[in-house]
Amino acid sequence: DWHHLSLARANGNSFAHRGELRQAKRIVVKLGSAVVTRGDECGLALGRLASVVEQVAMLQNQGREMMIVTSGAVAFGKQRLRHEILLSQSVRQALHSGQNQLKDMSVPVLEARACAAAGQSGLMALYEAMFTQYSTCTAQVLVTNLDFHDDQKRQNLNSTLQELLRMNIVPIINTNDAVVPPPEPNSDLQGVNVISIKDNDSLAARLAVEMKADLLIALSDVEGLYDSPPGSDDAKLIDIFYPGDQQSITYGTKSRVGLGGMEAKVKAALWALQGGTSVVIANGTHPKVTGHVITDIVEGKKVGTFFSEVKPAGPTVEQQTEMARNSGRTLAALHPDQRGVIICHLADLLVEKKEEILAANKTDMDLAANAGQLSSALLNRLSLSPAKLNSLAIGLRQIAVASQDSVGRVLRRTRVAHNLELEQITVPIGVLLVIFEARPDCLPQVSALAIASGNALLAKGGKEAANTNRVLHELTQEALDIHGVKEAVQLVNTREEVEDLCRLDKMIDLIIPRGSSQLVRNIQRAAKSIPVLGHSEGICHVYVDSEATIDKVIKIVRDSKCDYPAACNAMETLLVHRDILRTTLFDQIIDMLRTERVKIHAGPRFASYLTFSPSEVKSLRTEYGDLECCIEVVDSMQEAIDHIHRYGSSHTDVIVTENEDTAEQFLQQLDSACVFWNTSSRFADGYRFGLGAEVGISTARIHARGPVGLEGLLTTKWVLRGDGHTAADFSEHGTLKYLHENLPVTQPQPRQMSSN
Amino acid sequence: DWHHLSLARANGNSFAHRGELRQAKRIVVKLGSAVVTRGDECGLALGRLASVVEQVAMLQNQGREMMIVTSGAVAFGKQRLRHEILLSQSVRQALHSGQNQLKDMSVPVLEARACAAAGQSGLMALYEAMFTQYSTCTAQVLVTNLDFHDDQKRQNLNSTLQELLRMNIVPIINTNDAVVPPPEPNSDLQGVNVISIKDNDSLAARLAVEMKADLLIALSDVEGLYDSPPGSDDAKLIDIFYPGDQQSITYGTKSRVGLGGMEAKVKAALWALQGGTSVVIANGTHPKVTGHVITDIVEGKKVGTFFSEVKPAGPTVEQQTEMARNSGRTLAALHPDQRGVIICHLADLLVEKKEEILAANKTDMDLAANAGQLSSALLNRLSLSPAKLNSLAIGLRQIAVASQDSVGRVLRRTRVAHNLELEQITVPIGVLLVIFEARPDCLPQVSALAIASGNALLAKGGKEAANTNRVLHELTQEALDIHGVKEAVQLVNTREEVEDLCRLDKMIDLIIPRGSSQLVRNIQRAAKSIPVLGHSEGICHVYVDSEATIDKVIKIVRDSKCDYPAACNAMETLLVHRDILRTTLFDQIIDMLRTERVKIHAGPRFASYLTFSPSEVKSLRTEYGDLECCIEVVDSMQEAIDHIHRYGSSHTDVIVTENEDTAEQFLQQLDSACVFWNTSSRFADGYRFGLGAEVGISTARIHARGPVGLEGLLTTKWVLRGDGHTAADFSEHGTLKYLHENLPVTQPQPRQMSSN
Repeated sequence: DWHHLSLARANGNSFAHRGELRQAKRIVVKLGSAVVTRGDECGLALGRLASVVEQVAMLQNQGREMMIVTSGAVAFGKQRLRHEILLSQSVRQALHSGQNQLKDMSVPVLEARACAAAGQSGLMALYEAMFTQYSTCTAQVLVTNLDFHDDQKRQNLNSTLQELLRMNIVPIINTNDAVVPPPEPNSDLQGVNVISIKDNDSLAARLAVEMKADLLIALSDVEGLYDSPPGSDDAKLIDIFYPGDQQSITYGTKSRVGLGGMEAKVKAALWALQGGTSVVIANGTHPKVTGHVITDIVEGKKVGTFFSEVKPAGPTVEQQTEMARNSGRTLAALHPDQRGVIICHLADLLVEKKEEILAANKTDMDLAANAGQLSSALLNRLSLSPAKLNSLAIGLRQIAVASQDSVGRVLRRTRVAHNLELEQITVPIGVLLVIFEARPDCLPQVSALAIASGNALLAKGGKEAANTNRVLHELTQEALDIHGVKEAVQLVNTREEVEDLCRLDKMIDLIIPRGSSQLVRNIQRAAKSIPVLGHSEGICHVYVDSEATIDKVIKIVRDSKCDYPAACNAMETLLVHRDILRTTLFDQIIDMLRTERVKIHAGPRFASYLTFSPSEVKSLRTEYGDLECCIEVVDSMQEAIDHIHRYGSSHTDVIVTENEDTAEQFLQQLDSACVFWNTSSRFADGYRFGLGAEVGISTARIHARGPVGLEGLLTTKWVLRGDGHTAADFSEHGTLKYLHENLPVTQPQPRQMSSN
Repeated sequence: DWHHLSLARANGNSFAHRGELRQAKRIVVKLGSAVVTRGDECGLALGRLASVVEQVAMLQNQGREMMIVTSGAVAFGKQRLRHEILLSQSVRQALHSGQNQLKDMSVPVLEARACAAAGQSGLMALYEAMFTQYSTCTAQVLVTNLDFHDDQKRQNLNSTLQELLRMNIVPIINTNDAVVPPPEPNSDLQGVNVISIKDNDSLAARLAVEMKADLLIALSDVEGLYDSPPGSDDAKLIDIFYPGDQQSITYGTKSRVGLGGMEAKVKAALWALQGGTSVVIANGTHPKVTGHVITDIVEGKKVGTFFSEVKPAGPTVEQQTEMARNSGRTLAALHPDQRGVIICHLADLLVEKKEEILAANKTDMDLAANAGQLSSALLNRLSLSPAKLNSLAIGLRQIAVASQDSVGRVLRRTRVAHNLELEQITVPIGVLLVIFEARPDCLPQVSALAIASGNALLAKGGKEAANTNRVLHELTQEALDIHGVKEAVQLVNTREEVEDLCRLDKMIDLIIPRGSSQLVRNIQRAAKSIPVLGHSEGICHVYVDSEATIDKVIKIVRDSKCDYPAACNAMETLLVHRDILRTTLFDQIIDMLRTERVKIHAGPRFASYLTFSPSEVKSLRTEYGDLECCIEVVDSMQEAIDHIHRYGSSHTDVIVTENEDTAEQFLQQLDSACVFWNTSSRFADGYRFGLGAEVGISTARIHARGPVGLEGLLTTKWVLRGDGHTAADFSEHGTLKYLHENLPVTQPQPRQMSSN
């Protein structure tokens, strides 16, 4: 009898992508009993209920039409009846024994339907009290199987709900459990079009289709659908499930899709999907996400399993990562010359195919200009030109040269014992995720770095450069294909959320954000168990010593602050020795800063010296990133060091002095990634350091610090070759002794490409 | 009039340490209005309220006596009255204009006392409904100022509450706002003994003292007390506040203790403390901890600010970290010889003072034996002997030798331009936190490693070894004192929780857990933004190729599995080439494993070959850590690699074969930290690798991988020496060009110790 509904709503009405869920206007939230009740299904899980109410009210206030299909009446009633029965028992017992032993008494088994009747009113009262806190009105709707089988009743239900929604009321729907027949064997789960409403999932699906809801969120205590039985070695949560894939599902123990109790949920979800309602099945009981699981789903985040009728052409990002890792392993096993050839070929392609690249870039530029959202600086970064492509090609050829000496370099050789030799060699880190903003020139650069270091790469570019990036990536794959490692560099769809990518631990080994420090900070926050290589802030200091000469001070301070104020290696605080405060040197610094239109903020000590002070700094830890800086006074080089240790970010700090002893003390004692003497802070840069290819600048204290070259993309592995040696041979009673002889590190001829 | 209360309860009744809070029986939880209500103080924050109810009910069910002092009646009433007024306005408006414009109407200003009256019943109903879910009964108690000023009324209140607590009911207390006078200027906040109950904090403090509560938990929207105004550069949350410190507080804008509205809270807390009730002020609105802030406090975790009358003798762990960092900087600036001397002196002391050390160790052993909680293996690890101390001293002298070539080594020199030279040199990482379990020999070892690498150290040992560690640490400080860096190694009080230490980011640079993989995993979970160096699991494989010889296979498999099965480098899975399955070689392997009493689990493929299979593995990713292993069959070396990539942990994997080509393919393609050919997996160890001092084994892919020596405790810094160079000099229109000439890396004479 429900077939006409799926006819009425043409297929394809449901959303194709998670991102589209933001547009969902009418949403049914289904709360499984695991969500609403506590572990023992006795008593409600108040925290979860409250957070559901909070999220539903919030979405309702955004103008959406929210409906809740709830469980919990039985649990509420059980809790209530148990209490009543205990009390009446205790009265009886008290009459009999004269004692009050409430705690010792056993609780009787309660009939579910009676519990439902007893709990329904309390449950609704609780919902009402909770929604009242958000000025949201609720209405109780109890339905039975019959209401759905009778056309008239179904239409009545429909118009009642429509009217409630029109009045901005949240209908709370439950089965009228008090009048349903007792549980019986399941007989109507044969076809997708025929579903029972014995369970909440089916009720929610029917209601969602009946009410033409855009989205059904089904919350229970499972994460979603798995591709193998959950808990098995390879079980992976399915992000997006396509009904087409369902053919291969068998609902048994060894099924491809692990369904611990999921059969009914999936059938209901497919039924709703066929009726035009998108469905997400997710866990509503996970303590860490409970507070925002519903809003996260509506915001399109990767939560649970999303059911979609439209299977996208490309692979998922998880599949891309798998492909990248596999292809990356072959890339790592190539001869360095072969990796060099790939990079040089990519360099050639950038010049040969420049028409194609520039055409795609023009499309991006036009789209950006039409959208009118990008500043001229951003448009400038987005644009490519023949000149830019040429210099990009030159840079790539330099990376090709550097790649000769990266993977497979022997760092250490030890003769552990006779015929037992140890080597430590450089190897790629594995799979890199590089995230960059508008700049499309990043893509070939980063790809070349990854190829040179034998790493697989997931590249995620900004959507402003989507067309340019697509062409550049095709060229990269064309170059990689020379040696059959096309898949080692993957371009991630712009639709993927950065936060979702940062959660792919065990699949990605290192994340490198290239962009604003805001981007870096966001990624460091989102990436919980994947290391992030990057700098979060650059609060760089220039200290002008009492023995500094005027021309160097002016040159260095001007360059450090004004050359490119937005850079992380630009000066933020100028520390001045007290002795030069009332000298012409100081006046000249101030004059220069005024000429350059640098806004000056005074540190507390500096302010105290002045009659009319410029604005006093709010914090000595400020990264202005603009033509602004703080000036502070110190008594000595040692005080400058203390100031920098306290307020700096250990990025780059400079001393200007003619006294070599003072300078060396500063260089030695100061604990920053880069410590400079009589040079601008702006030299803190991989290219300027002569590292060749620049991966970025790291303010981390481990792995790589300061400007990072190809080295930062390598790790090591230990290779031990023996002849049946055992640890026991070397024990107290063993026959062998450790030699631990250092052997010369002669670079062996790189091995030929493996033939796999 | 309250003075007699503080007399009645002698000072010192409150708990001295957070750990003692677990013993609190009677607890008052005070909920500030920021906790109970939402941002605009209109409508309740249901999620927070629900989680408070959940935690209070849980603690009540543990047998504690819980009381709640709540806000929220005004907010609830405001929400309710606003709704009512809007409705009545809309009716009037509808009568006038014939339209229904609910949304456009302004909300009138509501009188707080009227709101309180309107909201009180609803608030209590909500509390009651919520507590009912946990079978917990509540009672409403409204109090006014007068109830506290009149002795008789106060006694009535007291006995009422006592009776409620006796009946296992949670009293919910609020001021009877409907009958209080309107707000007036504060006049009675002059002394600590005289406090108003206008605010909830004071009411809660009075009640807590009146009811002789053990603990008052005051939740609001501030984290606790800060040592400077919150938000200023140096503001730090005070973990434990001692009333003695209060003398130095001025409640002004530039006060030592930043009090944004904290004045009344602190006075109330001090008043309660003086009355014998411990107090914790904490944030009850932080989304990440809301669900467990109350239970965390009762479990003694570092949440908010704890008020204690007993100031401990030693410094706090934060102060220790500061001291370690400062002293560590001097240590790093020492001449390598000086660091060597310190370590050798410590080695001498271990031998000279062995009586003292062994006496302390005997105390620990006796305590452990008496407690009867430690297994013989653990007792064995805990015990020291003259022989152990001797070999410890020998190890330390080796570290002293290794330390000569660690800090200040030049890794790279580049002539960037004329007179512009760049050096990359090794420097210490900073402050290390090393956490080790029962073994007291860890302490001098780890201290020597830290000293050798110029790092500051916080050492946290197990409490079983507290006495031994104390003596060993005193000797370490004695050695450090030779060069005035006594504070560089700090022993952390055993009372400190490991999770709390792992949250000291920006103070600690690297955490090294030395102990069980469970310890490592816990720490990796707890340390959110501090890198952890360690291995979480070791699922090591031995692959027996078709071309393996019998004697090597038997030796290597036996050693890999049986030498020390609990080690992370022990074999967990034996992969066998299909061709040897029905050979005598295979029979001999099985016989050997049986002789060694190794329990065998069958992989799915292996099981399919057998008629009577041993138990099939649940997961191929199991770390047995015992005399158990999995056997699985593969078709080829390539399949072995695929298996290991899929199920291994990239720790250590071994091939046994006589075919060199096969071996080299395996060694090259396998992506593990250690890849071995024809040797036992047990060689994956810093000592056996000849790295000298062993920091641990890392399964991370960055910084350090596999067995880690002193190198793992070092990072680098870039030193650039110039002559007034600016980046602009090298720009397109500049006068200079980059040379980027590699210079020979000759080790300079280490500089003398700085004279600071």
